[in-house]
Amino acid sequence: MTISKTSSAKLAHAMIRVLDEERSLTFYEKAFGLLPVERLAFDDFTLIYLRNEATAFELELTVNHDRTEPYALGDGYGHLAVTVAHLENERARQEAADLAPGPIRSLMHNGKLLARFFFIQDPDGYKIEVIERAGRFA
Amino acid sequence: MTISKTSSAKLAHAMIRVLDEERSLTFYEKAFGLLPVERLAFDDFTLIYLRNEATAFELELTVNHDRTEPYALGDGYGHLAVTVAHLENERARQEAADLAPGPIRSLMHNGKLLARFFFIQDPDGYKIEVIERAGRFA
Repeated sequence: MTISKTSSAKLAHAMIRVLDEERSLTFYEKAFGLLPVERLAFDDFTLIYLRNEATAFELELTVNHDRTEPYALGDGYGHLAVTVAHLENERARQEAADLAPGPIRSLMHNGKLLARFFFIQDPDGYKIEVIERAGRFA
Repeated sequence: MTISKTSSAKLAHAMIRVLDEERSLTFYEKAFGLLPVERLAFDDFTLIYLRNEATAFELELTVNHDRTEPYALGDGYGHLAVTVAHLENERARQEAADLAPGPIRSLMHNGKLLARFFFIQDPDGYKIEVIERAGRFA
């Protein structure tokens, strides 16, 4: 075997463990239009891959069937981020759906606007950053 | 404002907190050809966005300048996944670079091969799943 010097890696999905499949599916569909494109049930766990039409990158949910206590989220993993066309509109839609989005904030860098965004939490407490498409996030 | 009924969300990045910027940059470049496309230094923290040519999805690293103890990774967040063209080749390349990839495994579902993959850990202990491009991961 000749070993290539470069990687062919393509970022494909992020996986989080969730307690309640239906609760998470409802949230991700309402919040971001992410729908299950594959559901694979095993004896001890179920894998669900969520996607929408905007990109091929997926969110993988793992449901461990015997898990009852909340997952320890720690302080290492930060968030998944999405970009949206209209920040106020997206936030108003989520609020109307009782999803409790946080306040809109701005991040400045060297006196220039870097991003406008808000955070929202999924049912297990994972944070999702919702960023307006502009600048480096366009 | 007329509120759209559908989300325009596009998955854009995943953020993890890391202790040592250089150590992480070295790992992600060697392991997956992910390079910094933006580095934003603030008083208390630095943000670095990593990307390669395969996709626009980015890995965001947050370095908190006063953090010294390892981050608590918890048991909720699972991993980031990449797909690769040649699994044995990718693993051999990583091993030659002293990155300590794990063994290649197969996951079967209902008697059919679902995926061939291995795991590798980054310097802070975050897991990355490396999956062969085939089937639903093609």
